[in-house]
Amino acid sequence: MDRSSSEKKTDGDGDGDEAQRNIAAAQDESVERIFESMEVPSWQRQLTLRAFVVSFILSILFTFIVMKLNLTTGIIPSLNVSAGLLGFFFLKTWTKFLEKSGFLKQPFTRQENTVIQTCVVASSGIAFSGGFGSYLFGMSEGIAKQTTEDSNPQNIKNPQVLWMIGFLFVVSFLGLFAVVPLRKIMIIDFKLTYPSGTATAHLINSFHTPQGAKLAKKQVRTLGKFFSFSFLWGFFQWFFTAADSCGFVNFPTFGLKAYDNKFYFDFSATYVGVGMICPYLINVSLLVGAILSWGIMWPLINNRKGDWYSADYPSSSLHGLQGYKVFIAIAMILGDGLYNFVKVLGRTLFGLYHQLRNKNTAQALPVGGHTHAPPALSYDDQRRTQLFHKDQIPTWVAIASYITIAVISTIIIPHIFTPLKWYYIVVIYIFAPALGFCNAYGMGLTDWSLASNYGKLAIFVIGACVGASHGGVLAGLAACGVMMNIVSTASDLTQDFKTGYMTLASPRSMFVSQIIGTAMGCVISPCVFWLFYKAFDDLGVSGSQYPAPYAAIYRNIAILGVDGTSSLPKNCLTLCYVFFIGAVVINGIRDALGPRWARFIPIPMAMAIPFFLGAYFTIDMCVGSLILFIWEMVDKAKADAFGPAVASGLICGDGIWTLPSSLLALGGVKPPICMKFLSRKANARVDNFLGGS
Amino acid sequence: MDRSSSEKKTDGDGDGDEAQRNIAAAQDESVERIFESMEVPSWQRQLTLRAFVVSFILSILFTFIVMKLNLTTGIIPSLNVSAGLLGFFFLKTWTKFLEKSGFLKQPFTRQENTVIQTCVVASSGIAFSGGFGSYLFGMSEGIAKQTTEDSNPQNIKNPQVLWMIGFLFVVSFLGLFAVVPLRKIMIIDFKLTYPSGTATAHLINSFHTPQGAKLAKKQVRTLGKFFSFSFLWGFFQWFFTAADSCGFVNFPTFGLKAYDNKFYFDFSATYVGVGMICPYLINVSLLVGAILSWGIMWPLINNRKGDWYSADYPSSSLHGLQGYKVFIAIAMILGDGLYNFVKVLGRTLFGLYHQLRNKNTAQALPVGGHTHAPPALSYDDQRRTQLFHKDQIPTWVAIASYITIAVISTIIIPHIFTPLKWYYIVVIYIFAPALGFCNAYGMGLTDWSLASNYGKLAIFVIGACVGASHGGVLAGLAACGVMMNIVSTASDLTQDFKTGYMTLASPRSMFVSQIIGTAMGCVISPCVFWLFYKAFDDLGVSGSQYPAPYAAIYRNIAILGVDGTSSLPKNCLTLCYVFFIGAVVINGIRDALGPRWARFIPIPMAMAIPFFLGAYFTIDMCVGSLILFIWEMVDKAKADAFGPAVASGLICGDGIWTLPSSLLALGGVKPPICMKFLSRKANARVDNFLGGS
Repeated sequence: MDRSSSEKKTDGDGDGDEAQRNIAAAQDESVERIFESMEVPSWQRQLTLRAFVVSFILSILFTFIVMKLNLTTGIIPSLNVSAGLLGFFFLKTWTKFLEKSGFLKQPFTRQENTVIQTCVVASSGIAFSGGFGSYLFGMSEGIAKQTTEDSNPQNIKNPQVLWMIGFLFVVSFLGLFAVVPLRKIMIIDFKLTYPSGTATAHLINSFHTPQGAKLAKKQVRTLGKFFSFSFLWGFFQWFFTAADSCGFVNFPTFGLKAYDNKFYFDFSATYVGVGMICPYLINVSLLVGAILSWGIMWPLINNRKGDWYSADYPSSSLHGLQGYKVFIAIAMILGDGLYNFVKVLGRTLFGLYHQLRNKNTAQALPVGGHTHAPPALSYDDQRRTQLFHKDQIPTWVAIASYITIAVISTIIIPHIFTPLKWYYIVVIYIFAPALGFCNAYGMGLTDWSLASNYGKLAIFVIGACVGASHGGVLAGLAACGVMMNIVSTASDLTQDFKTGYMTLASPRSMFVSQIIGTAMGCVISPCVFWLFYKAFDDLGVSGSQYPAPYAAIYRNIAILGVDGTSSLPKNCLTLCYVFFIGAVVINGIRDALGPRWARFIPIPMAMAIPFFLGAYFTIDMCVGSLILFIWEMVDKAKADAFGPAVASGLICGDGIWTLPSSLLALGGVKPPICMKFLSRKANARVDNFLGGS
Repeated sequence: MDRSSSEKKTDGDGDGDEAQRNIAAAQDESVERIFESMEVPSWQRQLTLRAFVVSFILSILFTFIVMKLNLTTGIIPSLNVSAGLLGFFFLKTWTKFLEKSGFLKQPFTRQENTVIQTCVVASSGIAFSGGFGSYLFGMSEGIAKQTTEDSNPQNIKNPQVLWMIGFLFVVSFLGLFAVVPLRKIMIIDFKLTYPSGTATAHLINSFHTPQGAKLAKKQVRTLGKFFSFSFLWGFFQWFFTAADSCGFVNFPTFGLKAYDNKFYFDFSATYVGVGMICPYLINVSLLVGAILSWGIMWPLINNRKGDWYSADYPSSSLHGLQGYKVFIAIAMILGDGLYNFVKVLGRTLFGLYHQLRNKNTAQALPVGGHTHAPPALSYDDQRRTQLFHKDQIPTWVAIASYITIAVISTIIIPHIFTPLKWYYIVVIYIFAPALGFCNAYGMGLTDWSLASNYGKLAIFVIGACVGASHGGVLAGLAACGVMMNIVSTASDLTQDFKTGYMTLASPRSMFVSQIIGTAMGCVISPCVFWLFYKAFDDLGVSGSQYPAPYAAIYRNIAILGVDGTSSLPKNCLTLCYVFFIGAVVINGIRDALGPRWARFIPIPMAMAIPFFLGAYFTIDMCVGSLILFIWEMVDKAKADAFGPAVASGLICGDGIWTLPSSLLALGGVKPPICMKFLSRKANARVDNFLGGS
């Protein structure tokens, strides 16, 4: 869910940002003047042990949350606000405690706060880019079984902790070294905005002003309250889910008929929270998509059973109704992805061209921050630029590291994925830095990461080259992983540099923090995934608690790339074309109308998600939207300041409940009660049966 | 539930009163000075048509609520605050509307407000004193079947709308005429406090000051919000109750084992509201009783099955475990009742003795308000006394009416209940005025109505005189009805006179309003009961949605009175003695310790209710208590002002939902879904069964 996830990222932080702006309004223009009296610690002192202890704890928390989201719907909102808030809360409490006992050696600074935030985001980012809900899990036998095509052993690679950790270690660091030499160009010369990074920096800056700290404390308290509520609610729900169809998650809120079409409110605190963070447009798009698909199209196609497709197929077969659901959704995602790929790439190239041309014309003047400063450079910018230049990371170190890791990686990866030969990897590593730069630049301009689109590109290209008979599906998915990891970490790190730039954190400490965070993520994520994998038998099964929708999607994209469209059911290809073109056209209309009217046009990418998942989580998210909407009507200022905290609390509490819940499942402890929903007729039969026996 | 119901009455109003006192604090001593400029309308103009239209609507609303409470647990909180609030709201809206359209002929006065409140309370009071949840329903075949003893036809009288209306008409007015001549003595001479009546008067007075009206408006809005919520919640719940064991009312919140012992939260908005109105002590007493009985005693007695009682009896048989539940509860209720009967009667006689002695010593001085006023008489009292004296009700009218109705009643009642011969009725009517006076006086002193204790006395005395072979059970229950109606209306009317005294409403208009209200109640209550009776097949069945616990209790008291204790299961009588004495002793301890420590000693009467009903409604009520407690901790002023409004909203909304729900049941519309709770094992079997067939 690259795009709308990043859209949410923007917005999630946007909210926090706004709350912060209410405070910043008074201090207004120059933030650095306020912090002038505070000493900026050296980069080594920014990297404290306590920061990494806190980061480690938060990383586990957020990995659980991201993993749960990966495996349920694949919609991942931005957790930066929560990370910032909780990081602040933990260290503030810790330092307060030390201060009182007289042991405090070093005060808690905003640089340290930035280091924590960077480390946590890097670490939990792996849970997404590691593909545990998409390409990596798509390689497994369970997912392969559902797709029937190309499910021979050479296209299957079942998850194992060790190879997953190994794989992540050899691919996740490349992105970091690829963009380090270019950071100055993007942050200082191009002055890219990076809306999410900027928003996070605003938030962290605000926390460390006295007023901001007070608000942050209140926000943390709110977060804590809703965290507990959400955790306890998850706990309570657990007791009533003795079997698959039991419990609140199967509550037919709108009746049994609507439930059969997946329209119900499933009481998930997580998705109510996600709905509160996502912009209204995303939620409405999801709902429109749900109504279009489960309300109209699927029932209509279902009526054609026996005509368009054989009625003998099981309901999960891709040759039946499920095929329409999956492939129409893929068509829409690809259409939307292609449009935006072309658009963002176009803007990137256009932007680069202008930047370079301006640079050429400016070449007559002397270059270098110290001797020459453009007239518009404010006090803030001066001070930030000065500190940004202070701690350098030598370019030769970056390049040498990149080459070393690339070589190691080229040797190791073919041992993990046999069909992916070493020369494909070399090709990827030659192009990767350029693509990483493109993505980092595009994200700076639009706040839009195209990582998974680059991944899909790799699936098609490598898959087609390898071919079906030589394990092209597995090779495609593995190539996707290599590509996605590089491109996604490249853009994340650049964004963190922006945050660091604005909080006066040293680039070197940011870089170290990101490396440590990535290393943490490479270990934590596979372990957490492994816990889920072992604890829940039906992981990835469509319709279960953890359907992992993108795993099947990615595998099917790979199959499509290798085999072509021959295996689709009747009329499915036509419908796919319609929706592919539809997605492009809707995007075109959105751009043509401009932002004022575009906010009434749904986003095709978001519409596609409920196509195969059902409407239930869109109902949750719309409930979240509705709560926020009413709250904003009643008290806008309060809603803006505390909405993200409430949402984060709901998401985190429910997310962390999955830890004890999966441990219980592992320990074989099963819930004692089943809350079951039966029609009156079925109930009468059951009562007879139970009474009679 | 005479006693704790009247205790609640006190407290319910007490809360409203407190809220009002916050306002009254500023205006302090003299209320009448504030109202000095406002003209008091003549008694005829206090009785407006609009007031009675509003009263009629509210009477139906409150009759539904009281009936529902009668038939579920028998705990009836005071609805005076709601009646006052809603009456004010309806007429205020109506007069505002007329004022704007220029049609307003007469402004809305506090006297009119008092008239509405009196009429509604009189009318909905019939729903309680009419015995639809106790003696009257106890005569029916359905209840008789459950008790096995004396269930021959001569002891059965099934409910029918016509005879019920007739019966209520001939007995309900007697109480009014019995105490009218004595009102001056009790209100002016004795200056009895009538805490509930005083509180209601405070509330109504406060509404008609500008500040009070503003608060009242806010309270009404809160009430409305929670009314809607509670109504919609009832509606939502309905969909999931396809059969008896389905729905939220059977939610095993604390697990299936606790559910089997009736410990669960049943999501009833009504009882959460009732819990918010009842004093903490009542709720704690209920919980203590529930734990003592369902948590400890019943499981222990159940282990003696086959030893203490035959295991062959069905679970509803009074010769089995059910017998222990019912008779131990009766023993406790009778013990508590006897103690308080003796206590209040003692205080009544002692108080009367003092009053009369003082009167004798004061006889030397001239008597009569105008020539002589005691030095302590404030401006308020002077003005109120003056107006109280203005409109007289001639004593001969009262006496003549009493005798006329008594004669008619003596002729008619034996035709309705054959075993109750005319001479028994004559005896009752000779003693009734004295008992009515005692009850009115006692209530004035202690706010404690002993109506149902007088009723139980009548059951024993008349039942024993008639004897088992001549229909003594039916005669006893009927006599209870005659007695309870007289005694209860007598005290209610006197209390209303007090309210009228304090709001300058004319005694004559109060009297008329009470007569009209009683007449309304005599028609509305039987009709509403009839609706329930026809709509719900399992009315009065233990363990069903409407168990009507007191119906069985009253019938068993009558059987006990007629047959003695011979039919009780083993050791039951011993346990009954223990609990009877226990109730007396606990009451004695409570009185000995004084109010400061007594609030930590549970009330036996309240403890007895969950004995046969189970713990579920005590959980609801404790949840209500807990909500109020936390609210008071957070914001005491707000909780005091809005707590009663929230509680009333919850009670009224759920109560009025029973109207559409019973209409749906009558129309044969059944809920579509069953929300069922199964153990994991049972669920596996059911899944097999459903999957296999």
